[in-house]
Amino acid sequence: MTDLRFARDDLKTLAQTLLTRAGLDPEMAEVVAELLIRTDELGVTTHGISMVPYYLPELKSGNMTASGEHEVVRDNKVTMVWDGNYLPGHWLMSQALDLCIERAGTFGMAALALRRSHHIGCLSTFTSMAADRGFVCYIATSDPSGKWVAPFGGTEPLFTPNPWAVGYPGDGHPVLIDTCSSITTVSKVREHINKGTQFDHPWMLDANGEATTDPAVVNATPKGSILPVGGMDHGHKGYATGLMIEMMTQALAGHGRAEAPTRWGGNVFVQVFDPEAFGGSAPFLREVGALNDACRKNRPIPGLPSVRVPGDRAHENVTRSQTEGVRLPDEVWTRVAASAAEFDVSLPGPVGA
Amino acid sequence: MTDLRFARDDLKTLAQTLLTRAGLDPEMAEVVAELLIRTDELGVTTHGISMVPYYLPELKSGNMTASGEHEVVRDNKVTMVWDGNYLPGHWLMSQALDLCIERAGTFGMAALALRRSHHIGCLSTFTSMAADRGFVCYIATSDPSGKWVAPFGGTEPLFTPNPWAVGYPGDGHPVLIDTCSSITTVSKVREHINKGTQFDHPWMLDANGEATTDPAVVNATPKGSILPVGGMDHGHKGYATGLMIEMMTQALAGHGRAEAPTRWGGNVFVQVFDPEAFGGSAPFLREVGALNDACRKNRPIPGLPSVRVPGDRAHENVTRSQTEGVRLPDEVWTRVAASAAEFDVSLPGPVGA
Repeated sequence: MTDLRFARDDLKTLAQTLLTRAGLDPEMAEVVAELLIRTDELGVTTHGISMVPYYLPELKSGNMTASGEHEVVRDNKVTMVWDGNYLPGHWLMSQALDLCIERAGTFGMAALALRRSHHIGCLSTFTSMAADRGFVCYIATSDPSGKWVAPFGGTEPLFTPNPWAVGYPGDGHPVLIDTCSSITTVSKVREHINKGTQFDHPWMLDANGEATTDPAVVNATPKGSILPVGGMDHGHKGYATGLMIEMMTQALAGHGRAEAPTRWGGNVFVQVFDPEAFGGSAPFLREVGALNDACRKNRPIPGLPSVRVPGDRAHENVTRSQTEGVRLPDEVWTRVAASAAEFDVSLPGPVGA
Repeated sequence: MTDLRFARDDLKTLAQTLLTRAGLDPEMAEVVAELLIRTDELGVTTHGISMVPYYLPELKSGNMTASGEHEVVRDNKVTMVWDGNYLPGHWLMSQALDLCIERAGTFGMAALALRRSHHIGCLSTFTSMAADRGFVCYIATSDPSGKWVAPFGGTEPLFTPNPWAVGYPGDGHPVLIDTCSSITTVSKVREHINKGTQFDHPWMLDANGEATTDPAVVNATPKGSILPVGGMDHGHKGYATGLMIEMMTQALAGHGRAEAPTRWGGNVFVQVFDPEAFGGSAPFLREVGALNDACRKNRPIPGLPSVRVPGDRAHENVTRSQTEGVRLPDEVWTRVAASAAEFDVSLPGPVGA
């Protein structure tokens, strides 16, 4: 089967209705649904409406808090700490981002460490919103309840993959970097396990310290792990990034592995910079434009396509979504449809069907 | 021959005298010499007094500015931009760091983008000074005149290795992360070329886009390059870090590759965070301590030593330097001795000789 395309408003209504039926505050459900569909528009379909089937049981169990407010632990104007009380990450991050942008507009930059959020989804969804408004936005996240990546030289999973992203204004559309500190992600590991397939490269580490292509080592006893960026060859570099992100998201937030939480959650560090408060927006765009241009014109490795700048493909996806509807992989639609059946919500038809 | 050890004051006097004889302002020479010797004490002997033989001709040619002041391009209190006028990087960074620490103490965090500095040396030398005072310090640097690393998927060198470092208070001694966006460094490439040796792994890329262990591809026509972190396997991750650092050090500073400078220089982004203005210093140390402890206790890969936290070895080196003198590799001493002969400066004897 080929992937289906849907009207964005239909998908948003579907996500919003499902989240509301599972008990989420209607205002929060609207924001979460909007951000999930924007994520699908960017082409990151692993983190769009496909998350709804995972969020619904979290709402029903109370692991995702369905209403109420975050706690402002510290507001120092330029630096802030919030306790998210496990409210939906999209809801918390939407407000955190707006506040950081406002403060960066006043002070030149601002940062917020958010502890005890629920899952925040796709980082580029947020960084692209800041970049569209002319700001540089850095986001890193970890889950102090998760253990998937061992410190380099060790064998016991300790860190989460610790994703980080940065978005900034570019020539025509934003640059959107969105990556993580491990070679691959938990989603990819689960996907291979579900399909019964192996990685093409030895990106996993078994509990004996041997690199392997087998994703199932994470379910073995004792558990294996995902290798940090750099793998067996130069994995101290991924370990370094992972450590830094644990520090920024947990130590600066004053909550983390020391408290040994067991609930699915996210700690986040978000920082916004105003180029106007540094060397100015026009010189900023001149430098970014020159560099992007040099990257795209760089002679490609024979047999490979032109060099891309991160964000180029997302821009194409957004543009195509606007004209052709939002693409969803079949596998995602199957899971969303199952949730809709469970909550007795009617499904929209695909575009052009 | 075995490495030699020297009294730190003897080495500092030697570096200071050499720099002064080559024309550097005496006050600047004192600061540069002090920071170079601290770098040797950390054990980073590639970036300590060993840099003096490279700086002397730069001073004589005028490529390193020997006196005068930097220009304050922007002072927005929390965000700053300086034009370094190619003054010694250690001198500029020493002042930039003090100012960022002072501002972070007031506002919670502060950042400075420095353009047109000369070489700033070892990043950990600066981050350790901030960490010793209780602050988190992030530093990234690029040289917009240098081209060594191709964007992932491309074959033409475009970026510098773009080092980055973060230092922060830890349990007993600071955590000192100091790494870069390429798999290996220009220094290591030159070292292999000088020795006629190859890398153990395919960390280089020839101009045809083939990975190779041969460092000499950087001198071929057309030029090869150093692979980004992740190599052929997942080098888009190192490319992402490299792009971000070019943006922070050049676009935010309003000067970079768009101006196509040709002079050996450094653009720097330095940011200082006060943990007290986030979740508090005590919770910060609790989280860092718990994580470091978990890393060090992680069961090592069979045959490998205990897992280390970055900064552990530097701490051992500093402690040993204080009791046994500062260790210098023979190769470094030979080059420094040649400079001393050229400038008619007498050499100190090694400790215990």
